[in-house]
Amino acid sequence: MSEVAARLAEIVGERQLLTGDQISADYAGDEALTVPGQVPRYLARPGTAEEVAALLAAAAEHGVPVTARGAGTGLSGAARPRPDGLLVSFERMNAVLEVDTENHVAVVQPGVTLSELDARTAEAGLSYTVYPGEMSASVGGNVGANAGGMRAVKYGVTRQNVLGLQAALPTGELIRTGGRITKVSSGYDLTQLIIGSEGTLALATEVIVKLHPRLGHGATVLAPFADLNQVLAAVPRILASGLTPHILEYIDNLTMAAMTHVADLQLGVPDEVRDASQAYLVVGLEHRSAELLDGEVELLGTLLGELGAAEVYVLEGGSARKLIEAREKAFWTAKSIGADDVIDVVVPRSAMAEFLTRTRELALKSGSGALGCGHAGDGNVHLGIFQQDPDKRRALLHEIFAEGMALGGAISGEHGIGNAKREHFLELEDPAKLELMRRIKQAFDPTGVLNPGVLLG
Amino acid sequence: MSEVAARLAEIVGERQLLTGDQISADYAGDEALTVPGQVPRYLARPGTAEEVAALLAAAAEHGVPVTARGAGTGLSGAARPRPDGLLVSFERMNAVLEVDTENHVAVVQPGVTLSELDARTAEAGLSYTVYPGEMSASVGGNVGANAGGMRAVKYGVTRQNVLGLQAALPTGELIRTGGRITKVSSGYDLTQLIIGSEGTLALATEVIVKLHPRLGHGATVLAPFADLNQVLAAVPRILASGLTPHILEYIDNLTMAAMTHVADLQLGVPDEVRDASQAYLVVGLEHRSAELLDGEVELLGTLLGELGAAEVYVLEGGSARKLIEAREKAFWTAKSIGADDVIDVVVPRSAMAEFLTRTRELALKSGSGALGCGHAGDGNVHLGIFQQDPDKRRALLHEIFAEGMALGGAISGEHGIGNAKREHFLELEDPAKLELMRRIKQAFDPTGVLNPGVLLG
Repeated sequence: MSEVAARLAEIVGERQLLTGDQISADYAGDEALTVPGQVPRYLARPGTAEEVAALLAAAAEHGVPVTARGAGTGLSGAARPRPDGLLVSFERMNAVLEVDTENHVAVVQPGVTLSELDARTAEAGLSYTVYPGEMSASVGGNVGANAGGMRAVKYGVTRQNVLGLQAALPTGELIRTGGRITKVSSGYDLTQLIIGSEGTLALATEVIVKLHPRLGHGATVLAPFADLNQVLAAVPRILASGLTPHILEYIDNLTMAAMTHVADLQLGVPDEVRDASQAYLVVGLEHRSAELLDGEVELLGTLLGELGAAEVYVLEGGSARKLIEAREKAFWTAKSIGADDVIDVVVPRSAMAEFLTRTRELALKSGSGALGCGHAGDGNVHLGIFQQDPDKRRALLHEIFAEGMALGGAISGEHGIGNAKREHFLELEDPAKLELMRRIKQAFDPTGVLNPGVLLG
Repeated sequence: MSEVAARLAEIVGERQLLTGDQISADYAGDEALTVPGQVPRYLARPGTAEEVAALLAAAAEHGVPVTARGAGTGLSGAARPRPDGLLVSFERMNAVLEVDTENHVAVVQPGVTLSELDARTAEAGLSYTVYPGEMSASVGGNVGANAGGMRAVKYGVTRQNVLGLQAALPTGELIRTGGRITKVSSGYDLTQLIIGSEGTLALATEVIVKLHPRLGHGATVLAPFADLNQVLAAVPRILASGLTPHILEYIDNLTMAAMTHVADLQLGVPDEVRDASQAYLVVGLEHRSAELLDGEVELLGTLLGELGAAEVYVLEGGSARKLIEAREKAFWTAKSIGADDVIDVVVPRSAMAEFLTRTRELALKSGSGALGCGHAGDGNVHLGIFQQDPDKRRALLHEIFAEGMALGGAISGEHGIGNAKREHFLELEDPAKLELMRRIKQAFDPTGVLNPGVLLG
């Protein structure tokens, strides 16, 4: 055993430190389609925050690059370790420490899955409202990526739902930020700085998340439209009506065809309506009272009619659930029908129509395919990219990202930059901001051991 | 004219650069009760973002400390300039540049008042939902302090309602962060880092704020309780009910007496109820429909009865408005009855009762008074401190802040640290976090010219 391995094993115990061939290929990366896996030199499975901090201190001392891993469900390659590096897996730090009904928060370890947290909060009539579509994801991974999902249109993304952290710094200290409080004005907001930093600034060792009352009654409404632009024009009108949908998604007709085929969905849309519809709007409403929910669904139906929906279907429980599940699995559907990459550009929602038109033109020009669905309420467009040639694909993505940014958007709304989009980010982002981000990185991580190669290169 | 003054005048024009006796005492500080005013050496009134950036570059070159000023309504002394310094007043950069109804955002210059923004958004049926209680405050000042206010219980504080910034860095660059988008996962969140940094990292030169539909129907409910602890115990029950109050305030009986006296309020509370009530809960509800609002008010009334309210009063429009105004002016009421300081500790809402009990004990022990009201839904306690002796007051505040932090809270929920509470902050905050904040400050401001003496000392 090398000196470094011995030191790391001393911290976590010999059974929790694996090296070389002991490390399974499962640890080689995440779900990013374009980031090849890489088994690390060391894998540590710490059991406590103090062990995580000690691992970082040791890594900094020996110049060993460190990558953090939650459940490995990320889509940007931020959990792909370095060949000469240490992978810190949070699989053993997976407990819900407390569901606090007085303050409507839960305190969790970063390795806990969303599925486990959902079950535990349900018992208290509460909900952690970040549902990025993959319930096996870990809260810690969600913090790293600032994960979003369908309900963000009502409840916000991870950033709006994490109130505090305990975090290990690469300088070896453990700090606590924020707390069981929804507002603080006492120094720089370190919580928000660490969220979305993709494991490059600090590693969360405990997370305080905000919970909302779990509303007992929900409805899912599906509306086909002749034209995608009509769908997108309907979105601000729905949001201005005073209704507060927790789901507001568009799905283009090809993606809907793939989803219904893969998931064997029966939505009750007659062939002639389907054939005349270029896109669909899916709206989720929820309420504490069934009667009041019915009133809202009626109001929404009238509104959708005015906005040009060909039909309005209020889906039954079973088919509603299946449609939402199919939408959540859109990444897997895209992958199964051969997408070469999946991206999630965000633009102002008023610019979605223009962005999608330009994207189609760019794809056509390069002989590629680009189709998808997205969080219409948030302007967050998920596109499957079909182009096997890596150079052509890279050129197309560059143009699509540049278009999104020119429209006032960003490369990623919720997946992150990671390894997969780092080059595009460095090429397209304002150099003054990149320089500032590098100085912030230096402030946290003077030896540069945390996830080198991710985000800032 | 000195070399520095000439350089600054060249940037903003001679008419917009004042020095020495030309500078009115109005620019000497903000509303903090314990921070004596200080007229700066230079006052610049820039008209553009480029001028602000050039001022910062010049100040950094000549080592001149820079303080930013919005409307001067802050309560922490963060806008008190240095005697040898430059005060940058945003009074001329006060335009609402756009109310964007498609994306539900407004784009404003930092000097715009909340009052002006409220009027402009009302025309579009929208609302900027941060109401910190002083409508002459500027949006830029609110960004610096991360201002809150009563409606934060439903809509969040400034942090949750600012989507993007243009900001001038002390290195002389202008950057844009975020945008007309509600989610981004593309690099560190510079927007959130600048918000609440009290003018120590960068100066906002343009702000993109989030707007919500302005709901047409509102009701204000007042409930006296025999005991403050009953009021505080009612809060989580109301929030768990599925009702979404936009106001959820407690007011202690002495503060209510002062408020009704100063504002000449007639609330229709009979003497015998008043005399038997130690505290009041004020709940605001709003809805798009009058009928549905009535249903919610009824539900709330029943709930308050179950929770032990002595009575439940649904206030008429006029007295409701006056009560809310009086609550907004609580700082001025405290000042007018002789408070020596006003603080706004935040604690987990479940800890409010314990915190207030301990605060009363600490005040009693030191021969001081501590009474107030607060944002009960957020655990944000506003206390008027009555103790003329500065040493005794400092000692009492230290104990109160330490108690709040020990309960999992922070020194300030929405007023900020500024000059007023810097020493307490430096004494009580974790040294590892202070050190990290100093390194972040250094990353933004290598020459240390932005608001020295504020926050980090």
